[in-house]
Amino acid sequence: MADSKPTQKPSNAPEIVVLRWGHRPQRDARLTTHVALTARALCASGFILSDVEDPGTEETVRKITNRWGGTFHFEMGTPWKKAVRDWKANGGAVVHLTAYGENIQTSDVLSRIKSLNKNVLVIVGSQKVPGDFYSSNVSDFNVSIGNQPHSECAALAVFMDRFFAGEELAKNFDKAKMRIIPRARGKEIKNDGG
Amino acid sequence: MADSKPTQKPSNAPEIVVLRWGHRPQRDARLTTHVALTARALCASGFILSDVEDPGTEETVRKITNRWGGTFHFEMGTPWKKAVRDWKANGGAVVHLTAYGENIQTSDVLSRIKSLNKNVLVIVGSQKVPGDFYSSNVSDFNVSIGNQPHSECAALAVFMDRFFAGEELAKNFDKAKMRIIPRARGKEIKNDGG
Repeated sequence: MADSKPTQKPSNAPEIVVLRWGHRPQRDARLTTHVALTARALCASGFILSDVEDPGTEETVRKITNRWGGTFHFEMGTPWKKAVRDWKANGGAVVHLTAYGENIQTSDVLSRIKSLNKNVLVIVGSQKVPGDFYSSNVSDFNVSIGNQPHSECAALAVFMDRFFAGEELAKNFDKAKMRIIPRARGKEIKNDGG
Repeated sequence: MADSKPTQKPSNAPEIVVLRWGHRPQRDARLTTHVALTARALCASGFILSDVEDPGTEETVRKITNRWGGTFHFEMGTPWKKAVRDWKANGGAVVHLTAYGENIQTSDVLSRIKSLNKNVLVIVGSQKVPGDFYSSNVSDFNVSIGNQPHSECAALAVFMDRFFAGEELAKNFDKAKMRIIPRARGKEIKNDGG
């Protein structure tokens, strides 16, 4: 990831890459797909499905990217320790989203993250994560999107919307074959061929 | 729902209830559970699983509410047409979240919704929704969280975070047996008995 070109992110913002840990291909396929598509739609530059391969999820995400545009790096099978080590070696920060972390609303954690002006690897777990994720060996920040149990997909969306200050939802994706024209009523899709 | 007491929402804000349409118990159980838990954690007052019953999802949501507090109304099996009709008859507004709708970032749709100062029924689909959902028979507003395909769970989270202006993440839930104390490192749970 380190030398990939982030064309997806809002201009001037650092890059976000999402690492999904603990994916179980049978049980988590749809949720992980939702997490990956959320990452892409909200302008992450890429997605790492760590420690496991799931070609079905990869294919779904690649098809969406091919049709709806943008540059979105997808990798799978990378051991999470290697992904985190490489990310840090390249000067990036690591944010672990967890209900136990510093509350994004009631603390200044987001402004501390943004003040670093570093690219951010966002770790979202599926199963219960290793205790090490909470330590400075892994995470620079543990961030909660509220301190209630809910969904990693929801947590990721709120984190990204706040990190990018909403600009991620206004971005046009390059090389799109299909584009939605927003409407108050009905559906409008512009087909740019391909 | 109409005469339930909304103790969950941030003070002074109108109430949100989430209607999940198109749930298929086998295929959608986990995603629908994530949608319901997101609704609850981000201070919706209730959740309607329309047209179908899924006791497993209901039980999961009830257990979470029982343990982590708050008042969260869960109902299932209500025909969506009846739920929408009753909501409107009680003076509420209906928002349909869809990638085709008015973009929450690039349009003024959120301020138009908020200026009504009405309780809001938020409809999130699972499968492809009936065309009627886009019409004024059903929706007062069609709102997109970006115009890219992603996740109804992510879309709901961003909508609620913006609707409640972040206050929903700071709220303490009444009658909680367990509470998370946010921390920069590690986990802290306060057990209030029960």
